[in-house]
Amino acid sequence: MKVTVCRKTHFNAAHRIYNPSWDDRKNEEVFGLCSLPNYHGHNYDLVVKLTGDINPETGYVFDMKALKDIIDTFVIKRFDHRNLNVDVSDFTGLIPSAENIAVVIWNILREKIGAEYAIQVVLYETERNFVEYSGN
Amino acid sequence: MKVTVCRKTHFNAAHRIYNPSWDDRKNEEVFGLCSLPNYHGHNYDLVVKLTGDINPETGYVFDMKALKDIIDTFVIKRFDHRNLNVDVSDFTGLIPSAENIAVVIWNILREKIGAEYAIQVVLYETERNFVEYSGN
Amino acid sequence: MKVTVCRKTHFNAAHRIYNPSWDDRKNEEVFGLCSLPNYHGHNYDLVVKLTGDINPETGYVFDMKALKDIIDTFVIKRFDHRNLNVDVSDFTGLIPSAENIAVVIWNILREKIGAEYAIQVVLYETERNFVEYSGN
Amino acid sequence: MKVTVCRKTHFNAAHRIYNPSWDDRKNEEVFGLCSLPNYHGHNYDLVVKLTGDINPETGYVFDMKALKDIIDTFVIKRFDHRNLNVDVSDFTGLIPSAENIAVVIWNILREKIGAEYAIQVVLYETERNFVEYSGN
Amino acid sequence: MKVTVCRKTHFNAAHRIYNPSWDDRKNEEVFGLCSLPNYHGHNYDLVVKLTGDINPETGYVFDMKALKDIIDTFVIKRFDHRNLNVDVSDFTGLIPSAENIAVVIWNILREKIGAEYAIQVVLYETERNFVEYSGN
Amino acid sequence: MKVTVCRKTHFNAAHRIYNPSWDDRKNEEVFGLCSLPNYHGHNYDLVVKLTGDINPETGYVFDMKALKDIIDTFVIKRFDHRNLNVDVSDFTGLIPSAENIAVVIWNILREKIGAEYAIQVVLYETERNFVEYSGN
Repeated sequence: MKVTVCRKTHFNAAHRIYNPSWDDRKNEEVFGLCSLPNYHGHNYDLVVKLTGDINPETGYVFDMKALKDIIDTFVIKRFDHRNLNVDVSDFTGLIPSAENIAVVIWNILREKIGAEYAIQVVLYETERNFVEYSGN
Repeated sequence: MKVTVCRKTHFNAAHRIYNPSWDDRKNEEVFGLCSLPNYHGHNYDLVVKLTGDINPETGYVFDMKALKDIIDTFVIKRFDHRNLNVDVSDFTGLIPSAENIAVVIWNILREKIGAEYAIQVVLYETERNFVEYSGN
Repeated sequence: MKVTVCRKTHFNAAHRIYNPSWDDRKNEEVFGLCSLPNYHGHNYDLVVKLTGDINPETGYVFDMKALKDIIDTFVIKRFDHRNLNVDVSDFTGLIPSAENIAVVIWNILREKIGAEYAIQVVLYETERNFVEYSGN
Repeated sequence: MKVTVCRKTHFNAAHRIYNPSWDDRKNEEVFGLCSLPNYHGHNYDLVVKLTGDINPETGYVFDMKALKDIIDTFVIKRFDHRNLNVDVSDFTGLIPSAENIAVVIWNILREKIGAEYAIQVVLYETERNFVEYSGN
Repeated sequence: MKVTVCRKTHFNAAHRIYNPSWDDRKNEEVFGLCSLPNYHGHNYDLVVKLTGDINPETGYVFDMKALKDIIDTFVIKRFDHRNLNVDVSDFTGLIPSAENIAVVIWNILREKIGAEYAIQVVLYETERNFVEYSGN
Repeated sequence: MKVTVCRKTHFNAAHRIYNPSWDDRKNEEVFGLCSLPNYHGHNYDLVVKLTGDINPETGYVFDMKALKDIIDTFVIKRFDHRNLNVDVSDFTGLIPSAENIAVVIWNILREKIGAEYAIQVVLYETERNFVEYSGN
């Protein structure tokens, strides 16, 4: 009997979509305003979903407070109020698109959460643009 | 050609997360504020999803009004403005965590809805904490 | 490594749920207010989800601006501020229920988007009633 | 000690913005897609706000259930699933713009609610376009 | 040049609307399900608005972190995961209706925030029922 | 008979809260993470409200499309995907706090919109932090 528990958190960060192996003209052509040199930013909403069995002693699949603490310690503290391109080492050599941010977060959480739980990450860059990643 | 139709409803209830086989100290240690003796409460948002074929005569997979009536009669009328621990017999001997509430609701609906429909329940305890259950 | 990218858009349209092979009495019996002759309407929210591989040169699964342009050109321009029953040829002989609208949109997009992407459509008729379709 | 109590409801309706004293060309020039002949529609969200004193016996400024009943009886039942231009007599000779709909609703409620309460109406045509009216 | 700064927080609590000077029958007649003896609950959303001058050294009317700390210390810590009727002394002899909760919160904040700021409290009991209070 | 019409738009920008007349230590002490050197960012939601009379020929207080065009041309095009501190001249010598951004936007709009309309600006930095300014 598998239940999925979901925790929504958020962080605010600056970023820029830019491929350093291309010249500025091609970057602007492909990425438009997103490539502007001085960065822009977003209020990212992050939903982390864990699928597993209910522990009958607690009624919990996973303690939401413990999940919040893991997300805060390993994701929010490192990403919040940061410039993803400049301040966060995970994006050295990796374009901080919503897709790549979601994969990076999934990889971080995969190391911290027991293998008996399936993990899905949903990352909202805006309420109109969001991505989902399940490690497949 | 399978389409999923989704209906969002809500109910307001009190609950408390407490394992009676533990002493109060352990309950507080594990459940924190959620175990406080005089209950707290939530505006629960409930999304019920049914997957099935479109009936070509109606364009419907399932009449949303009929689905609403089933949810109202068998879930909302029993849970809304109630104390889940005290007033709702489904939680006798079962901790009313969001996980268990979702499973209880799924089981209630499974009996009332034809087997040709797959059912998924999404239950929001808050907009930050929610659970999903599909009967698997 | 499959990532799903999601784009939310919207359109406002009038419609009526009515089966012309039935008399008015049966239409009203089955569809209630939704069958009233002079139409009613909705702010439809449409989420289109594409699943595919990340292009390492861009960090994108699919350029969100390109996806928006496809949705705008082939869905929004044809549906927005229209009467779905009267103005949109896809609904000639097809009841414009949320289910059928979602399938029509999915079919439109399937022709415009490369087969290497899986497509899912989520269509909100209201925030309480919505449907999902993945082409299965 | 004045407190404002607010009740949010909704209705779905079709409408068209069209001035019959102008020709179609001028209507299209001024109103664009909103003037198309076969109507479009919206999920209208309506917030009604009443300002008055707290009744110490109930803790209420106004019983929310009674307010809901007034709104349902005199607004929702007449507007919901209707074509505002064709079906609702208040808009005979009056363009059903969000502004005029809000004023019509305010006038309806002003007759039904005691003069000791100030009334404000907020009407969302979409989440991006909304209007406020207080009878001033 | 007066600017209003607004901070949204939340707490989850149980309550019951009940006038002890009435018998149960009258309580049920007036308050319906809200008077049920074993309590129900809500996710309360609280918006606190302060109006004042911008400090040119900081660009702030009021430091949002300081405002959050005041709200957390004097409101959230006392109300969150509590039973308002039983656990919170402010509601001894006062019905914990949304109206009264808003006035109680306003009075608490008025003592902690300098008189140079006007205060408004908006309290959402549900997304459909909310109240506003400005101390007038 | 004054009606208020409201238009919600959005822009994504980077910023940093930093007073150049202070040293870094004092900036960090007062502004915390908001003062970090490499910027962070937000999805700003902007609501512009105009209060005026309904034009009986159109049913409009102000053409929402015209209002959208003014906001797009004079605010969004200059602010969206920009670094407010570096790219937007209005913030030369002015800390781009939510308060100051709201005042700058109000001043921009005041010049473009006829004096017969009162203007209010509501700016959401996050859904938890927002500011209101009416030019008073």
